[in-house]
Amino acid sequence: MAVSPRLEAYLREKRVQINRTLEQVLPPEAWEPATIHRAMRYSVFAGGKRLRPILAIAAYQIAGGRQDAILVPATAGLELIHCASLIHDDLPCMDDDDYRRGRPTNHKVFGEAMAVLAGDAMIALAFECLLAEDRNDSFPDGALLEAVRVVARAIGTRGLVGGQVMDVSNDPEAGSKKTLEQTCEHKTGALIQASLECGGLLAGGDSRLMKALRLYGKGLGLGFQITDDILNVIGDPRQMGKATHTDQAQDKVTFAGVLGVEAARKEAKRWIDEAKSNLDFLGAAAWPLREIADYVLERRS
Amino acid sequence: MAVSPRLEAYLREKRVQINRTLEQVLPPEAWEPATIHRAMRYSVFAGGKRLRPILAIAAYQIAGGRQDAILVPATAGLELIHCASLIHDDLPCMDDDDYRRGRPTNHKVFGEAMAVLAGDAMIALAFECLLAEDRNDSFPDGALLEAVRVVARAIGTRGLVGGQVMDVSNDPEAGSKKTLEQTCEHKTGALIQASLECGGLLAGGDSRLMKALRLYGKGLGLGFQITDDILNVIGDPRQMGKATHTDQAQDKVTFAGVLGVEAARKEAKRWIDEAKSNLDFLGAAAWPLREIADYVLERRS
Repeated sequence: MAVSPRLEAYLREKRVQINRTLEQVLPPEAWEPATIHRAMRYSVFAGGKRLRPILAIAAYQIAGGRQDAILVPATAGLELIHCASLIHDDLPCMDDDDYRRGRPTNHKVFGEAMAVLAGDAMIALAFECLLAEDRNDSFPDGALLEAVRVVARAIGTRGLVGGQVMDVSNDPEAGSKKTLEQTCEHKTGALIQASLECGGLLAGGDSRLMKALRLYGKGLGLGFQITDDILNVIGDPRQMGKATHTDQAQDKVTFAGVLGVEAARKEAKRWIDEAKSNLDFLGAAAWPLREIADYVLERRS
Repeated sequence: MAVSPRLEAYLREKRVQINRTLEQVLPPEAWEPATIHRAMRYSVFAGGKRLRPILAIAAYQIAGGRQDAILVPATAGLELIHCASLIHDDLPCMDDDDYRRGRPTNHKVFGEAMAVLAGDAMIALAFECLLAEDRNDSFPDGALLEAVRVVARAIGTRGLVGGQVMDVSNDPEAGSKKTLEQTCEHKTGALIQASLECGGLLAGGDSRLMKALRLYGKGLGLGFQITDDILNVIGDPRQMGKATHTDQAQDKVTFAGVLGVEAARKEAKRWIDEAKSNLDFLGAAAWPLREIADYVLERRS
C-alpha cells in the first residue's frame, strides 16, 4: 500500500467525521417505515471509502473554510447520492451485481422494490442535507444554492446518469478513446468534480482555485475509473468485496478491455499526473489532494 | 363533467404554460445520450393533469405572487418529480403496470434500466429546476431554499417514498383507518401539500396563509387518493388509460376495499369539504383551489 502515514491518518480522521455525520442525518432503523431505513443504512454503512466527501472537505479546507460547517451539507449529501447510485447500478436490470463491499447487494437483502425506493429516498435526503438550514450563515452568499445546483447537474443526464446510460447501451462508437473518456467523465468524473467544486464554493474559493479544482477533478475522475476498470480485470475479488471480470462477461467496453491492462495503466497515470499539475500554484497546502490522487491510482480495492 | 367553464379555462391556460415550461427545461430528444432524453420526454408528455404545478401556481397567485416567476422552479420541478415517481412505481418490481395514460409504461418501451435511470435523472433535473438561478431575485430572501427543502422532505421516507413503502409492504395493521390515512397522506398528500407550500413560500405568504395551504393540501391529498382508489374499483379503463381492479388483484389495502365504495366516497367528500373550509378567510380570490378540490372528487380519470 502506497498510502503515506500522514494520508492514512488524514483519511481515517475524515472517515470518522463523515460516518458520524451520516449517522446523524440518516433516520434510525427503528423509525417507521423501518424497512426502508434499514435498507438505506445497510448500504451507507457498508464500509465505503468516502472519497467524495473527503474531496469536498479537502477542497473546502484548501480554500480556507472551517471544516465543521461543511460536514452536513456537502459531506452527507455527496455520499448519500453516491451510495444511491450504487444501489440502483447493482439492480438486476442494470449491472446485476450480487455482491458489493463483501456483502450481498441491497436488492439481494431487501428486494428490488425496496432497493429502488431506498435509492430514491437517499437522493431526496441528500438534497435535504445539501440544503441543511442551520448552516446557511457559514457560507458566502448564494454559495449553498450554487453548490446544490452543481450537484444536481452532476447527477443528471449530463453527468452520472448520462454515464450510466452510455455504460449500459451497446454503442458501436463506445470503443473509441473519446467515447470511453466521455463515459468515464460522466459516470465517475462528474460527481467527483462536483464534490471538489462544492468544497471550493462553500469556502468562497476564487475563480483560479475553482478552475484548478475542476481540472484536478476531471483528471482524478478519469484516473479513478480507468483504475476501477483495471481492477475489474486483475483485482482480487476477496480484497475488493465484489466479483471481478464482470465487465468482460457483460461485454462492457472499458479502457482496460480496449487498450489492454498495461496501456490502461499508463493512461490512468497520465490523467493522475495531469490532475496533480493543476495544484502546483497551491504549494504545500494542497498535499491531501496530491496524495489522494496517488492513492486512487495505487489502490487495490 | 362537473368542471365549471371558468375552471376549465383556468386549467387549460395553466397546462399550456406548464407544458411550455417543461418543453424548455427538458433536454431535446436529439441530445446525447438520446435514449434517456426520449424516455424522459415520453413520460412527461403523456398528457398528465399537471395538478401539482397548477396547485403551486394557484397558491402563489393567491399569496400575491407574479405568475411567470414561479413557472420554472416550482412548476417544472414538481411535475418532474411526480412523473419520476410514476415511472418507478410502474416498474415490474413495484406495481408492475403495463399501461399509464393510455400508453405502454416507460419500462415497456425503453426497458427497465432506462426507466430506473430516467426517474433518477428527472429527480436531479427537478432539483436543478427548483434552484433555477436566474429567478432568485423574484422571491423573498431564503424562500427558494426553504421551498426546495420542503420538496426534498416531501419525497423522502417521511413523504412520497415512505408512502410507497407502506403501500408495497403487507403490514397487518394496514387495514386500520389510521394506517390507511397515513399511507395516503405520505404517498399522495406529501407532494400535493409541498406544491401548495412551494407556491405560498415563493410569494412570501404569511404564516396564516401557509397554515391554510398546508391543511387544504392535507385534505386535498386524502380526497384525491381515496378517489383514485375508488376509480381503481369502478372506473372505466379506457377513460383512465390504465388497468383497473389492480389493487384487488395485488391485495392492496385501500379505503375503497376496506370501507366499500359508498363509504369511501363519503370519506373522500368529508376530506374535500375539510380542505375547502381552510380557505374561507381568503374569500373569492381562492376560487381556483375550491373548484380544484371539487374537480378532484368528481373526476372520472
